[in-house]
Amino acid sequence: MENFTFWNPTRIEFGKDKEKEIGKHLAKNGIQKVLLTYGSERIKHDGLFESVVLSLKSHNIAFVECGGIVSNPLLSKVYEGIEVAKREKVDAILSVGGGSVLDSSKAIAAGALYEGDVWDFFLGKATIEKALPIFDIITLAATGSEMNHGAVITNDATHQKYFIQAPALYPTLSIINPLLQSSVSKAYLVYSASDVIAHCIEGYFTATTHPVFISKQIEAIITTVMETTEKLLINPDDYDARGEFAWAATCALNGLTHVGVAGVTFPNHMIEHAISAICNVPHGAGLSIIMPAWMKWYQDKNEAQFKRFAQTIFGRESAKEGIEALEAWFKKIGTPTKFAHCGIEEKSIPAIIENAVDNAHYFGMDEVYTKEVIEKILKKAL
Amino acid sequence: MENFTFWNPTRIEFGKDKEKEIGKHLAKNGIQKVLLTYGSERIKHDGLFESVVLSLKSHNIAFVECGGIVSNPLLSKVYEGIEVAKREKVDAILSVGGGSVLDSSKAIAAGALYEGDVWDFFLGKATIEKALPIFDIITLAATGSEMNHGAVITNDATHQKYFIQAPALYPTLSIINPLLQSSVSKAYLVYSASDVIAHCIEGYFTATTHPVFISKQIEAIITTVMETTEKLLINPDDYDARGEFAWAATCALNGLTHVGVAGVTFPNHMIEHAISAICNVPHGAGLSIIMPAWMKWYQDKNEAQFKRFAQTIFGRESAKEGIEALEAWFKKIGTPTKFAHCGIEEKSIPAIIENAVDNAHYFGMDEVYTKEVIEKILKKAL
Repeated sequence: MENFTFWNPTRIEFGKDKEKEIGKHLAKNGIQKVLLTYGSERIKHDGLFESVVLSLKSHNIAFVECGGIVSNPLLSKVYEGIEVAKREKVDAILSVGGGSVLDSSKAIAAGALYEGDVWDFFLGKATIEKALPIFDIITLAATGSEMNHGAVITNDATHQKYFIQAPALYPTLSIINPLLQSSVSKAYLVYSASDVIAHCIEGYFTATTHPVFISKQIEAIITTVMETTEKLLINPDDYDARGEFAWAATCALNGLTHVGVAGVTFPNHMIEHAISAICNVPHGAGLSIIMPAWMKWYQDKNEAQFKRFAQTIFGRESAKEGIEALEAWFKKIGTPTKFAHCGIEEKSIPAIIENAVDNAHYFGMDEVYTKEVIEKILKKAL
Repeated sequence: MENFTFWNPTRIEFGKDKEKEIGKHLAKNGIQKVLLTYGSERIKHDGLFESVVLSLKSHNIAFVECGGIVSNPLLSKVYEGIEVAKREKVDAILSVGGGSVLDSSKAIAAGALYEGDVWDFFLGKATIEKALPIFDIITLAATGSEMNHGAVITNDATHQKYFIQAPALYPTLSIINPLLQSSVSKAYLVYSASDVIAHCIEGYFTATTHPVFISKQIEAIITTVMETTEKLLINPDDYDARGEFAWAATCALNGLTHVGVAGVTFPNHMIEHAISAICNVPHGAGLSIIMPAWMKWYQDKNEAQFKRFAQTIFGRESAKEGIEALEAWFKKIGTPTKFAHCGIEEKSIPAIIENAVDNAHYFGMDEVYTKEVIEKILKKAL
């Protein structure tokens, strides 16, 4: 078991109607003016925007808007948000949306208190020492961003999908109301399931030291996500399933699954960031394509853990059967497992490889993930 | 799934040599003088005290001592600590020891900033609004106090074993070095295992709403504690087993096993507090006596969950078999399962019942746990 530090100061307010208390929480934290970030205009029609604004007004909290944040969120929009945050002298960011909105909000929060180019942080040219406080109402369970200190942004000029991490980026408060997630489409539900499972397996398989207790906790998350996804595909209004899915998604990337482990790498994310940067597919869709391919390539390197996975998750014996079972489950729920399922043609592969090679360098994994290795993995997904 | 708030701001520093950094952490938090609390003088001989003092001195942190805290810690000692803390104007409490030392430190931390009698907090006559910051080096894995906001103290004048809870009581920083726990006796190891399992099963069985995901997380803790206890009984120096045991113990009572659940009660703790208040047996020993007895009495009230317990923990079918398997496992590791194993005679039972009836009222459980019910449960442990 490795030495570790665990500290996660985010306050979670989970459950029905919790979003109506956002004004109260902001006021309690001394916030007087926020930058309200969101994605599509849809939230203005489904009542959420109105509900948030009502809560802000009843606590005399002013706000300025930064809407239009897209999936695989873009640096250009982050620049726009920083400009508004600085000009309007907001005290905090209030993110209303999914992981893309929240990740953009984190980058804006850091950039608003920095004189230089926020992309410096992504390139490791500067360290995030401070950020505006971040509050969020999360409307899609997947990324775990609501209880961690990371964010991923795509530089639309260079097609680099890079990340930042800093203690200052932990949200002060995250509101998770499973009811707000009931309107998520079936497609995005299964992409989310794929994303959460990816967060689980990266460390589970790649760690060189991995306490059994951590394996058990990860298996609890994976089986919960699988069971609740199946329930939600039948009945999207199953509140308890929606709630367990949401909380399991949060727990998959809040730091607890990485304590005491050593040597964790994120090869699936590293490769997927190339796929979505080049082809703009949803992150979870790219992950369900790459995971079975990567697992087939990687299984010999940690056979005992692959056998454990097969046994505890699927009741199968061999590593191979476990991977096949996961791929079959992805097919069953309807998330893609091959490039063709997403309309990605073989001719796109060279550009993906080139981007992934850059990512491998960026992730510090280029010794293992050479161009040849990445090509070998990608070809398993054709 | 119930609405919930989760917030746990404690920083955990886990691993080898972490205690040597205590001075650095205190200094970083602006602390200049601490009340150093501990139990027996043993820590002055095994090097820990010296190591801590060295770290304090190298960061110019002054300290005054409050030693001699005993298991089932006493209010009289808390008063003594408060007096010293106030007189010496310390900035923080530094607890070096197990759960008893830490619980006493929490009570001292609250009492030091209160004009009235600290027992008021235990009686619900006053609410803890503030406390001195608490830092700790935990030398026994069991109570989970290192990552929660509760404390249990026995009033030596009245034999009431009561508790306090308040956000201000979360330790600012807890240091968990599994190596410091290697010298724990086999007896205290198995009592600790019993204590952790008790923390797990109270909510698991009594909750009226209990997400499956939470059941899975609890089962991960229980099986980890069982597996690592068996390893440590064979080899007390198995660092990984010691580490997983310690972290599982922390996770059993840091709030995460209670999110989304409703209707949790603590009947085993309620009854055990009476046993240890009257007979001064170790808390974990009292719990391994009372748990099988309580389970036999309670099983019909939540049969499905008892069956789940039997199946997931022991691979058995019926509720009855699960309870028998747990009792057999307690016997196997050598923690008592009957009063006689602790030298408690039948003639002590009336006093225990009387104390437990008071506790039932205190815990707000007197409607279910009448004198007759408590007597029925206790008799199953004779």
